[in-house]
Amino acid sequence: MVNEDLEKIAVVFEPQGRKVEVKKGMTILDAARVAGIGIRSDCGGLGLCGKCLVIVEDQLNLSSTSNVELQHIPVDKLRKGFRLACQSIIKGNVRIFVPHESRLETRKILSEGVGRHFELDPAIRKMQVNIPRPNLHDITPDFERLCSVLRDMGFTRIEMDHELMQKLPIILRRADWKITVTLWMEREVISLEEDGAERAFGVSIDVGTSKIVIHLVNLTSGETVSIKSMENPQITYGEDIISRINYAVLREDGLRRLQELVLEAINTLIDEACREAGVKKDCVYEVTVVGNTAMHHILLGYNPKQLAIAPYVPVVKQSINVKAKHLGLKVNPFANVYVLPIIAGFVGADAVADVLASGIHEADEVSLLVDIGTNSEVFVGNKEDIMSCSCAAGSAFEGMHIEHGVKAVTGAIEKIKIDPRDYEVEYKTINDAKPIGICGSAMVDAIAEMFKCGIIDHRGHFNKNISSKRLRQENGVHKFVIAWREESGAGRDITISERDIQEIILAKAAIRSGIAVLMKEKGVREEGIDRVYIAGAFGNYLNTESALFVGLIPDIPLDRVRFVGNTAIAGAKMCLLSRKMRSVADNISRTIRYAELTVHPMFHKEFIDALIIPHRDLSKYPTVMKYLKESRRLNE
Amino acid sequence: MVNEDLEKIAVVFEPQGRKVEVKKGMTILDAARVAGIGIRSDCGGLGLCGKCLVIVEDQLNLSSTSNVELQHIPVDKLRKGFRLACQSIIKGNVRIFVPHESRLETRKILSEGVGRHFELDPAIRKMQVNIPRPNLHDITPDFERLCSVLRDMGFTRIEMDHELMQKLPIILRRADWKITVTLWMEREVISLEEDGAERAFGVSIDVGTSKIVIHLVNLTSGETVSIKSMENPQITYGEDIISRINYAVLREDGLRRLQELVLEAINTLIDEACREAGVKKDCVYEVTVVGNTAMHHILLGYNPKQLAIAPYVPVVKQSINVKAKHLGLKVNPFANVYVLPIIAGFVGADAVADVLASGIHEADEVSLLVDIGTNSEVFVGNKEDIMSCSCAAGSAFEGMHIEHGVKAVTGAIEKIKIDPRDYEVEYKTINDAKPIGICGSAMVDAIAEMFKCGIIDHRGHFNKNISSKRLRQENGVHKFVIAWREESGAGRDITISERDIQEIILAKAAIRSGIAVLMKEKGVREEGIDRVYIAGAFGNYLNTESALFVGLIPDIPLDRVRFVGNTAIAGAKMCLLSRKMRSVADNISRTIRYAELTVHPMFHKEFIDALIIPHRDLSKYPTVMKYLKESRRLNE
Repeated sequence: MVNEDLEKIAVVFEPQGRKVEVKKGMTILDAARVAGIGIRSDCGGLGLCGKCLVIVEDQLNLSSTSNVELQHIPVDKLRKGFRLACQSIIKGNVRIFVPHESRLETRKILSEGVGRHFELDPAIRKMQVNIPRPNLHDITPDFERLCSVLRDMGFTRIEMDHELMQKLPIILRRADWKITVTLWMEREVISLEEDGAERAFGVSIDVGTSKIVIHLVNLTSGETVSIKSMENPQITYGEDIISRINYAVLREDGLRRLQELVLEAINTLIDEACREAGVKKDCVYEVTVVGNTAMHHILLGYNPKQLAIAPYVPVVKQSINVKAKHLGLKVNPFANVYVLPIIAGFVGADAVADVLASGIHEADEVSLLVDIGTNSEVFVGNKEDIMSCSCAAGSAFEGMHIEHGVKAVTGAIEKIKIDPRDYEVEYKTINDAKPIGICGSAMVDAIAEMFKCGIIDHRGHFNKNISSKRLRQENGVHKFVIAWREESGAGRDITISERDIQEIILAKAAIRSGIAVLMKEKGVREEGIDRVYIAGAFGNYLNTESALFVGLIPDIPLDRVRFVGNTAIAGAKMCLLSRKMRSVADNISRTIRYAELTVHPMFHKEFIDALIIPHRDLSKYPTVMKYLKESRRLNE
Repeated sequence: MVNEDLEKIAVVFEPQGRKVEVKKGMTILDAARVAGIGIRSDCGGLGLCGKCLVIVEDQLNLSSTSNVELQHIPVDKLRKGFRLACQSIIKGNVRIFVPHESRLETRKILSEGVGRHFELDPAIRKMQVNIPRPNLHDITPDFERLCSVLRDMGFTRIEMDHELMQKLPIILRRADWKITVTLWMEREVISLEEDGAERAFGVSIDVGTSKIVIHLVNLTSGETVSIKSMENPQITYGEDIISRINYAVLREDGLRRLQELVLEAINTLIDEACREAGVKKDCVYEVTVVGNTAMHHILLGYNPKQLAIAPYVPVVKQSINVKAKHLGLKVNPFANVYVLPIIAGFVGADAVADVLASGIHEADEVSLLVDIGTNSEVFVGNKEDIMSCSCAAGSAFEGMHIEHGVKAVTGAIEKIKIDPRDYEVEYKTINDAKPIGICGSAMVDAIAEMFKCGIIDHRGHFNKNISSKRLRQENGVHKFVIAWREESGAGRDITISERDIQEIILAKAAIRSGIAVLMKEKGVREEGIDRVYIAGAFGNYLNTESALFVGLIPDIPLDRVRFVGNTAIAGAKMCLLSRKMRSVADNISRTIRYAELTVHPMFHKEFIDALIIPHRDLSKYPTVMKYLKESRRLNE
């Protein structure tokens, strides 16, 4: 134990010139920790790695050079005043120079989402501490003994979970008082380990209605070391959110069953990721989670009943912190699970992450952000004010309710071109495999192309006057053949029917009307939108021109449109790697306004208008108007 | 939801003259809560009890008199401006007079321990709240909706356990948004109830090595409504602390078994107390616990191994807060269990409670406090500084290892007088039943009396020259008959043997030497001790003169000696009823110094000296010296 009676000693660290008061008995490495100066050490201060080299001019105020130092430091360096920071005990005022090669970069800048830069500052700090042994003259109990060492390192208010406290006396003695401590938020000891490993990991999770994605991240470097995903197994109890809620609410034990399913899936993914990256699950000390409000509620075991009943009130809006052991996640049992805050019943934690990762809440320019998924969220605004809404677009874009619809898997047709002269079709499949079906982006392409060629009209009905062997009738349903049986990997013709087209039109109208309502609410017109961000896995394959032609997005110069991929997981990762990003997320959740479309006076008209390709008011789509004029179809 | 746009209204409460800004839509009762003014209400503001009568001069700024009010308020009072605070909605600035009969005493002063006065201020606040229903224009989620109402009442930082949050949406709607909230430490919602009951209870527990005592307390009034106790069932695994520790450490699952036993016992006692007092166990919202360090460790599931090995280091010193559900106590699952802090390996939470309840840490005068139990704790000092030690007095005073020893039960001989002329014995039994054995206080009496009469000498050996039919030899062991078989309820003579006397002398020497070491350490002599407090159940029966004559306590005028009973449970109750007392307890734990007798240089000599009756240095016992001189035995 440090003797409190001894006078304080001033130590100056160069080149920072940082001066700190330290207590006698501390090593230079200890003092550097107090000063917040990062000195390299791979062995945790045990004198094994020889990396904590520092230069001290006046060595009289240090303990004399140890055998360990003589072993690690070449003679010429010894002559120049080099010492090992972990071996040199401070006995008086000293000036210490930390050479560049011994410095730990304390500020590490990372990038996630849409080129969003932030400082690496996770909630986790893992460090080796040496605890003085008790003796008959110092019977300080174990916990206070640990706290005293941490206090000297600047951590003053230490807590510990009851269950970990039960293990404390055993671990301390098994580790012979040299222990690796993991601190959460600089206040709670969440792990005590015997081995000197200083690697700390975290996991970010995106619980989508259809898909669960996890990223395993090294919290020391900020690197993602493994990515795993799988279909959300709840899908057997309903494709869409409402059927899941109904199952949770109406079935005895339904909520518990759905929660178990998602937890099992997440645990399986974490297991796979940890095995792939060679990481012990106990070394995963922090988890961040995003998901739409229904997935958020089910994961947390909150009854989602009210989300399906007007006025669609969630259980809680603010971010949630719950221990992994209480939630049932199989990582370090004392790891904190941070669930991002939500905005409303159908604008969830994933949407907060979208905004965080896109940065639209900090931009001067006005952005339109659309996250297309089983449910789609729309945002319009800038740093002054953002409005949001949720669009029940359904899962048509994911291939559901489309006869030959498939997800974006190998063999899915992802792009379609139709020759306006002979209506012949050119397509591209994912991984260039034989086509097995049509994914969402190609459906949008197909409708845009068929509309451009005049195969379908403004309402999505086939033009019966067109003569093409690709256009045919089956049991009274009109269909257009995209791929013939011979070329197909599905053993039959791959077609698009009028009913398929109507499904997509309904989905696009839901999103387009949401965009329209928010633009009107914000008083923003097409020319006032500086940026369009399209998020969601589907977005990456989307042809923006097609999206514009079908009227999914407003008629905005296409160079302003940007696909931003899975911003939900990007936002979750930002919160995993930076504590500041958590308060930003909380702020986004509190300040973004929400428009409930189902009761919005403008919504119905906008929805009806958007059921036309591209829109009932063609003057809103000058690009399409110009095309049609040039192809002389406007007069037809 | 209170409309934020409306201007703030100023309300003045008389006679306090307290002025507060309240929001439109609040009742006078709500406003009084914001103002911290206590108004009586037995129904929780539902208009059922008619007790929240207040006088309002300008009734124009109130809602008009309701039918409920017309029912409860006599006409003459109505004319004088009486209203029900729970029914009157504030519409503008008003001046409200709260008559004496409607006032809730906000400062309630309680008394516990040695006349220790403190303000009733438990960690629990239970109150009825009316939560505005959500609608499509106010979709604030459930938790934030509750927080908003609590914020208006002055509680700004609200937390809730994950498991309770899961129940929130169901409870709120089942209660139709009128709910009874129990707040812990003004920050954590620990209970949500539908019925309007505002009764809140707490339990204090003293886990002794031999006996477990619980008090069920009404947290609103401070009254103890039931007391229950039972033998500590761990006793089957060892009478004393060391055998329990050995069992916990050496047997597989030993610690868990001992913990389960004590938890089962406590749960049984709580069950009995609640049934007796007609209290639902879910309405027990707070628990405080004391116990010696070993009992403390075992109850909390901390490995007690180090307590039996020098330097006897506990796991943790500071007070512990753990939820009842995590500890396994069957009260409200979210109730907080506050375990008082400890001082050292053998000076536990019970000792901290002893000091708290005796008040020696606040007194100018110097006190000697002795808590006699299976282990005994001794304190010497005053508000400047207190020293403590632990004496391994064993359980001789509780009848263990004494041939006819019994606990203080019905039929136990509790007082003994011996006639110095004919050595005839007079005794008194508990509840005046036929004698079944001798309890600790009577053993001290017997030794003091036999010593006074010359039946035994300074070393506790029988004087063989004395002729009495009561003095006899059985199998070579000298014995003195206290009660003859004919008078006894045990079916045989009740005797005291030389071996019994030696057991008691060993125990008294352990305590006396502890007192001596602390007095020397503190530089205090007999005349410097202003007060002697004897705590522990045993103390109540002890004859102080006998205690002085055998040398258990120093030779101090007997009017300075006071029996204070179970100060451990008194201290636990003080912490249950007053948050301030918890910080006082923490402070006691931090500041009291501890002397480890086993390595103390003075201990061995003091112990040897104390093996003599009353003491090797007779000059320390002038009272005894005077008696012996007067009875002319000093020259014998």
